[in-house]
Formats: sequence, structure tokens, C-alpha cells
Amino acid sequence: METKEERIVALLHGHDRAGIVARVSGWIYARGGNILHADQHRDRQEGIFFQRVEWIPVGDVAEEMRLFKEFAKSDLEMEVSLSRSSSKPKIVLMVSKFEHCFGDMIMRCRSGEINCEIACVISNHEDLRPLAETFGLKYHYIPVSKETKPQAEAKQLEIIRESGAELVVMARYMQILSENFLDTCSAPVINIHHSFLPAFAGAKPYHRAYERGVKLIGATAHYATKDLDEGPIIAQLVTTVSHRNNVDDLMRKGRELEREALASAVRLHVEGRILTYKNKTVIFD
Amino acid sequence: METKEERIVALLHGHDRAGIVARVSGWIYARGGNILHADQHRDRQEGIFFQRVEWIPVGDVAEEMRLFKEFAKSDLEMEVSLSRSSSKPKIVLMVSKFEHCFGDMIMRCRSGEINCEIACVISNHEDLRPLAETFGLKYHYIPVSKETKPQAEAKQLEIIRESGAELVVMARYMQILSENFLDTCSAPVINIHHSFLPAFAGAKPYHRAYERGVKLIGATAHYATKDLDEGPIIAQLVTTVSHRNNVDDLMRKGRELEREALASAVRLHVEGRILTYKNKTVIFD
Amino acid sequence: METKEERIVALLHGHDRAGIVARVSGWIYARGGNILHADQHRDRQEGIFFQRVEWIPVGDVAEEMRLFKEFAKSDLEMEVSLSRSSSKPKIVLMVSKFEHCFGDMIMRCRSGEINCEIACVISNHEDLRPLAETFGLKYHYIPVSKETKPQAEAKQLEIIRESGAELVVMARYMQILSENFLDTCSAPVINIHHSFLPAFAGAKPYHRAYERGVKLIGATAHYATKDLDEGPIIAQLVTTVSHRNNVDDLMRKGRELEREALASAVRLHVEGRILTYKNKTVIFD
Amino acid sequence: METKEERIVALLHGHDRAGIVARVSGWIYARGGNILHADQHRDRQEGIFFQRVEWIPVGDVAEEMRLFKEFAKSDLEMEVSLSRSSSKPKIVLMVSKFEHCFGDMIMRCRSGEINCEIACVISNHEDLRPLAETFGLKYHYIPVSKETKPQAEAKQLEIIRESGAELVVMARYMQILSENFLDTCSAPVINIHHSFLPAFAGAKPYHRAYERGVKLIGATAHYATKDLDEGPIIAQLVTTVSHRNNVDDLMRKGRELEREALASAVRLHVEGRILTYKNKTVIFD
Repeated sequence: METKEERIVALLHGHDRAGIVARVSGWIYARGGNILHADQHRDRQEGIFFQRVEWIPVGDVAEEMRLFKEFAKSDLEMEVSLSRSSSKPKIVLMVSKFEHCFGDMIMRCRSGEINCEIACVISNHEDLRPLAETFGLKYHYIPVSKETKPQAEAKQLEIIRESGAELVVMARYMQILSENFLDTCSAPVINIHHSFLPAFAGAKPYHRAYERGVKLIGATAHYATKDLDEGPIIAQLVTTVSHRNNVDDLMRKGRELEREALASAVRLHVEGRILTYKNKTVIFD
Repeated sequence: METKEERIVALLHGHDRAGIVARVSGWIYARGGNILHADQHRDRQEGIFFQRVEWIPVGDVAEEMRLFKEFAKSDLEMEVSLSRSSSKPKIVLMVSKFEHCFGDMIMRCRSGEINCEIACVISNHEDLRPLAETFGLKYHYIPVSKETKPQAEAKQLEIIRESGAELVVMARYMQILSENFLDTCSAPVINIHHSFLPAFAGAKPYHRAYERGVKLIGATAHYATKDLDEGPIIAQLVTTVSHRNNVDDLMRKGRELEREALASAVRLHVEGRILTYKNKTVIFD
Repeated sequence: METKEERIVALLHGHDRAGIVARVSGWIYARGGNILHADQHRDRQEGIFFQRVEWIPVGDVAEEMRLFKEFAKSDLEMEVSLSRSSSKPKIVLMVSKFEHCFGDMIMRCRSGEINCEIACVISNHEDLRPLAETFGLKYHYIPVSKETKPQAEAKQLEIIRESGAELVVMARYMQILSENFLDTCSAPVINIHHSFLPAFAGAKPYHRAYERGVKLIGATAHYATKDLDEGPIIAQLVTTVSHRNNVDDLMRKGRELEREALASAVRLHVEGRILTYKNKTVIFD
Repeated sequence: METKEERIVALLHGHDRAGIVARVSGWIYARGGNILHADQHRDRQEGIFFQRVEWIPVGDVAEEMRLFKEFAKSDLEMEVSLSRSSSKPKIVLMVSKFEHCFGDMIMRCRSGEINCEIACVISNHEDLRPLAETFGLKYHYIPVSKETKPQAEAKQLEIIRESGAELVVMARYMQILSENFLDTCSAPVINIHHSFLPAFAGAKPYHRAYERGVKLIGATAHYATKDLDEGPIIAQLVTTVSHRNNVDDLMRKGRELEREALASAVRLHVEGRILTYKNKTVIFD
């Protein structure tokens, strides 16, 4: 880390008007703050302005956050979300049977590479309980069938709410979350899935990609929305494949991409680097 | 080049049986040939065997080619295509108005980077005539409207046939070739088009990719088949994009990918490195 | 292009102080300008601030440029360079015998993909004259030997100065430019060369990379400085290689990288996206 | 996996002569074996032939291995190494304080993604003992100082020998192994380190790369030889960086590359896909 002093991160967005950058930096400047990073973006087509600004405040951090929020809302009429570098957000991991993303997330959270705390694990299978418990993680087994899905989701939502999680990570959770789940969930949800050129909808995508002889395979991490895999894209990775690779090779390479794209997306979210609007993201990396 | 002695390249494929590699190399070995490269592949699911073998023959090259063809057909019961390093295949370029792929193909062919000769250019517009004629290339202007398409294609097919071209390259030719064209064309056709994750069918794909906030864009070179952009894939490239890139940036990056993927696909074809079967390719690169 | 209205691009850098962003955007805002893009960077270690800002001015463009320059120098005490979107800078291409970068640069300049005009070509060989003259480019043949190098460079410098070029592009010019040349040249010089992991100094780098069995090869475009290939890096590209690739393959792949990295570097320079300091670059892309 | 029948993998290399491919496949064919994969390579410059062949034998696997070895040595006069798919080789992990490669290796070995067993861990620090013991791994703490290095290495060598390990993996072990260690170690050693374009020898390479403004950073996994980081290269990865990235970002990106390049190299080794000669590798992937 560049500095050990506490930093505030603000994410702003709203109607684009000339002078916003000047006013934001002016406000921080006037209060003695030291801007470390500031990045802005304007979507000219939509007329929306976005900014991420990270600074070291003078004085009480909580008070500065409160005042900045007030300034952003009242004076700038912008949406704002704030976080401070000393906070360590909680996340809930949802998993099924595959362990590659799950194990990787655990390792990165415990080492501090992703600055968050795993509040608990929710799974529709018992398979990954031993690995979770090896790390002292609470593991909620909630089986899901067609009939029990509403009750299962209600239980999941309650666990998530009670955990105080600020993010839910679907680390290869192989159930579709209902529209109701996503509407009422107390935290945003990040999902990871394979992606191909061309796209292969439906079952066994790696087999179909193999049959089609694709030369690239990919993975996409995105926020889950009711339109399934159509939510705002956070991170995408691809790698090359050839006729020498069989379906197992494609799956192995796919796991590598899923692991890295998911970890990258969660890190970006936790560090307050993502703004979403109109089904797309601005990533201040 | 490693060697100036003339080489034969054979592409074989057929029903997979044990011992084919042994018999091919045995045949060449017995006749004093010196194998430079040999690569094989078997699709175990389909039970098909593929081989590319490149060797320096002893004696008359044409005669060795004739004998190998006979051996492959009669003894091995395999499909075979043969070429010799001294031959320079002819290609026909089909273009519309964009010049990035067209200019790039001309440069690579004239420098020998792609070992072929441009027999002529066919276009539905006059825009690229000056550039073609700068290089002394014959330019056939054949306008295409909904009504005249059958006649236009008949004329195109005749020009291609008479040119003796072994390959047709759609270097951003913005018309859809009819099923009849592709069925009766005297040479295979390579096409290039953008590809996205997720895919965007229909018009203005770069605009839609921008609206969707994709983090990667790509290009795919493939053989044209009656199912439009669904033919066997030869080469795929991607590059990263971010919210900082506008639609123009996406298009610029797309041109870069199209240029390189198309050039790569044409080179692979011309060097006899591509075998196709069941709508996919084996690329011996 | 997003807009056809004329834009001003300013590149600023200087001693970092709080409030600069506010003052720059405030100045433009106060004069009715419309900021299209603004990106800034601060090197906290060095205490230097950098900004690229692109805007549509109200009123006379030349006058706005003059006033902004004055403001930047007097009020902000920053170094500033300004350009306007309607200007098309001149460049001089220096080449030897390889044509891949040369042909590619010509194509991109003539299509407007790189927004500049090739003032002339300087070469120590006659090989590329026909290609240059095909495009109506003036070609200066200046042979260079150990003895004649000072005079040759004097002649080159004069041609460059008289051409009014704002950039010199070494598109595979295989002579080392002297310290004196670089000190007195009236325009910055961009060079392209291969780069490897590990690095291979000296002759025949592709042969040595092949012998070493590297799995990646690369190309680096940079400003030429007296320390040869040690100038500020603008663009770097790599691609994978394997034991299946021979030296010719490495060279072919290297040409691909050189072409693209050089084109990218020249475009970034021409679009006013590069700031250099302390032997490194800030690229506002 | 494509098949559950046991497979034999043979790696052959030796003096190149015509007909070897024919004889190898002929031998397997004659004994009823079913070749799944066969890939060969010849280094024409050095006159060396390489082959990896993987097949399902008929009859007793151990006996077939014995007979093939005899055939390869006596008839073909080739070096040969053999493994069978049911065997799970042991590896020893050497670590210091960084946990990213270490944790990742553990996860991949336990999930079977890398088909090996971690025999034990050797470290010159106690830091990673808790993580190792979480997974029930034996952890040998052997401090190393300038004075105790010979004795420490002797102890390390003994542990490695007694473990029966077929591979030693330096998962960010920050001590230089002596020439004597590498000469007498009972197993090959794979190391991982950063690599840059240009290379930065000496201390704090990420800081120096940052100062130089590189646009790419990389990691290289290789066999350790007495010339330190100059051993045969197995895997290399790179990623892009920009002026927006500070030294911490470079290090974070570097960790990502190190993790993946090391995992890839160990997997390739364990699956018998690497042949080394003259300080380079042939990778049959």
C-alpha cells in the first residue's frame, strides 16, 4: 500500500453538467483533503457524469464522509456512495459442487488480496462443507428442488440479510436465482459464467464449443439481474484453444478464466471501483 | 526459409485406423524423402484421422506427388490434397468500401508474406478502384441490387472461375453471398467479421456492444457457408475495451483485429495448414 | 467521430498542487467550453501532475488556444502543448529494406486511420523507392557508411527540418542515430524494435530467442534517445510461440507485432495522447 | 477424462533418423495398443527427434512399459521416460513468506486439477505453517543464513530424497539454491519469477519497472539450473499495465501471473508433457 493513512473513496454519478470536477476537487481542496486518485467519465450519449475520487481527509473521517455526502446530494444533486479504507466489507459465497472458484476466493480473502471477510457460505449441496470448515467458515446447506425453491430462496435471503453482507458472490452456484430473489436481496450479486464466440446457449456449452472448433473460449463476470446472464458486465477474459484441445482441456482452461475473472470482479467491487447504469458498468481501475 | 529445396505438403484425412502414421512416414522414408514437419490429429469422437506432412522428395517432384496421391487413395483410403512449395496460388479479393483489410492483404501479398498472387479484385462499389489500380490490379466493378443479385453473382462466379483462383477472400465485402454462389463457386471462400461476447446479431453491432459495456471485442475469420457466419472457424482474435472507449474506438480496435485475423486465415490456407470437416477446422500451425 | 465541431487538445504537466483540476475545468467552463474528455494523472512519488483535456471551445479556436496557453503558463505554472482537431501533422518516415512497417504506415496514413501526412521518406537504401513512389511519396536516398555518417545525418536533419515534420518515425530504419542527431533533430523520433523475455542483446535476436526456447516474443515502440533502445516506452505487444515455431515463424510473428506496436505509438503521438517525463510516458488512451 | 482405461505416456528423444515415428506407432500397433495422442518434434538444427505418445495398452501395463522401454533403448537407441495414468507423483513445495503461489498449488493439488500429491513443505520461515497444517501438510522449518546454508541445504536434500518426490516446486522460495544443491537434488526443480521487457536485474524489479513506465509485465516458470534464472523456460505469461497502475498494482498483477504460470508449469511436468534439451523445452500440450 502506498499509504497507511485512512482514505475515503467516493463514487458519484448523475446528470452531466460542466464544472462538476472543479466543484468536487474544490470541496476536498478547501477542507484540506489530499486527493490520491481521481478518475471521471462522462457518457455523452446518455448525458451522465461519473467520478471516483479517493482522498486522505483531515479531521474525523466519519464526519468528512457525512459532509461530503451532504454536499454531493444537495449541492451537486448526484448519487453518491462512500467507503473508507479501514472498513472490510462482508460477503456471502454461494456455491454448488465445483471448488475452483470457491477455493480461490477463500485464499484471496484470507490473504487480504481481496479486502473482505467471508461472512458465510450457502450451498445446495454438502460437497464443499469440508473445505469451508477447514477454514472455519459457517456453511449453510439449503437444498433446492423445483418445489422447495421459494422457501429455499427465502431462507437464503434471510441468511444474507442477517449476515450484513454487502455483496453476494455466486462462485459457480448452479441454480438460477429467481426474479424475486434478485429484487429483494439486500446486497448486489456477482455471477461468473463461460462465454464463447459464437455464444452457445443451453446445455453442455463446452461440448458444443468443441464441436464447433472455436479458437477462443472466455469467461464473463457480471452483476446478476433478472435477465439471467444479461446483467452489467464487470470483467471478461479469454484464452486460445486449438484442435489439439479436447473437451476436458476446454473445461480446464475455462476454470482458469472463471477463477481469475470472478476474483477480479469481486476485488473491483470491494474496492469501490464499479459504477453501474443502464445495464453497463464504468470500471475505475 | 529454412531450406530452398522444393517441398511437398500433403493434407490427409479419413477413417482413423491404427498404423497410418507408420505407413505414411514409411512410404516417404522408403523413397528417400526427408520429412521436415509432420503433425497429425485424431478426432476420437468422430473416428477421423488428420495429417499434415511436409517433406523434401528425392527425384521428380510432380512424379512423387502423383505417386503419393495414388498411395494415399488406394492403400490408405484417405482423402488427400497436395501442394508444392514452388507454386503460388491465385486468389480473388472481394471488397466493398472499407479499405483496411484490402490494403493490408495487398501489402502482404506483394511482399511475399502471404505466398499468393492476387488474380483480380471484385467490388460492388468503385471506391477502392484507385487503390487497386495503384498496384496494377484488375478491378471488376459489379454493382449488386436486390433485383440484379443473381446476374451479378453469375458474373462474379465466371470471373472467379476464369481467374483460376484457388481461394476467394471477402476482405469486408458487405453483401451476403447466396447459397447458390457458395455451392457453385470454383474456390473456397474466406470471410471476416466482428464477434462479441455476448454476440450481437443484426445491425450496428459496435453500437450495441458499446451500449452493453462489453470489456472485450473480437473478430473471426471463417470459411463462408450457406449458414452465413456459421462456417468453419479459422482464426479468432480479441482485444480489451473499457468505458473510456467510445464507439469509434471500438470500431478502430475492431479493424485492427479484422486485418490481422483475415491475414492469418489466408496465410494458413495458402500454406496448406487447414483441414475442414463437420463444420470445424484442424489448423496445423 | 463523435462530433464534427473543432476540438482543442491540451497536454499539461508540472508541479503537483491541489486544485489544478478544478482550475482547468473552471477556466474552460467559465469561457463556455464543453469538455469532451479529461483525464489526469499524478505521479505521487515525483510530485508531478499530468492532464489531457479535450474540449469544444466557443468562439475563435486559435484565440482560445492562445488564451489557454497563457493561463496554463502564468496562472498554473504548468508546461502545456496544444493541438486542434483540424490540424494534420506532418511526419517523416525513415526506412531501410524491410517493408512491413513501412507499407502499413502508408496504408494507415492514406486512409486517415492515423491522422497525419507523410511529408517524405528517408532511406539508406533504394529498395523501397518503388513502393514509396507508387503512392507519390518523395523518397530521399541517403547512403550511410561509417565514414559518411556525420554528413548523412546532417542531410537527414536538414530534410526533416525543411519538411516541417512534427514527428520522425523509424519504420525499421536499421542505422543507429547518433547522440548529436537526436539532440538537434527538430522533431521527436519514434523507433520500433523487438523485445524478448529474457532480453537478447546483440545480433540475431530471433535466432537466440529460438535457441533459448522462449514462449513469448514481443515488440516495443518508444521514443529514441541517446541511450538507444532505452527511451520512454510508448507501446508494447507480445505473442506466444512454441517449439513448433522455427526462426522464420518467430520473425513473422515479430513483424506482426512491430507493425501494430509502431502504428499504435504513432497514432497515440499524433492524437496528443502521450506525455513524457523522466524517461517514461503517460498515455491517455 | 476421455477414458478411464489406464494409459501409458512415453517421452522419447534422441538422434533424429527417418522412420522413427513409423517404428514407434508400428510397435504399439503390433501389440494391440490404441494410440490416443502422439505428437512429435524434430529440431533440425540440432538433429534431435522428440516424441510424446500416449496409448491404452492391451495386457499388463507394467509389462508393456518394461517392453517399450527395452524397445526404445535397444532398437531405437532413444532416451525414454515412461509414466502411467494411475500413478500420482509426489512433489515437495519450497516456500518463504508469500502465500499466493503456495495456496494456489495446494488448492489445485487437492482438487486433482494437478494430478500429484504434496509430500511435504520446506520453508526458511514459520509464516506459512498454519496454512500448511490446515491442510494436514507436513511442514519442515529450516532457517537459512549465509553461514548455515550448506547444512540447511543438506537437510533439505535429505528431506526431498526421503519423500520420494519426483519434483521440487519453488513456490516463491526466496533463497538461491546452490550449484551443489541443484547437482545433487534427487528431483528436478521448477522455479517461478517475474520477467520484464526490458529485463530488470537486481533488487526491487517492480519498482524499477514502474519507474521505467513499462506497458507489460510478465512471469516465467522454468527449471532451476546453476545459472539461476537461466534454466529451460516452461511457461511465460504477460499482462498489460499503464501509468494508472502504481507499484502495488504491478505487484498484484505480477502475483496473478506467477500463480498461473507456476501452476501451468507444474501441471505440464506432472502430465509428462515436457522434454528438455540444450537449455530449452519442448512442450507437448
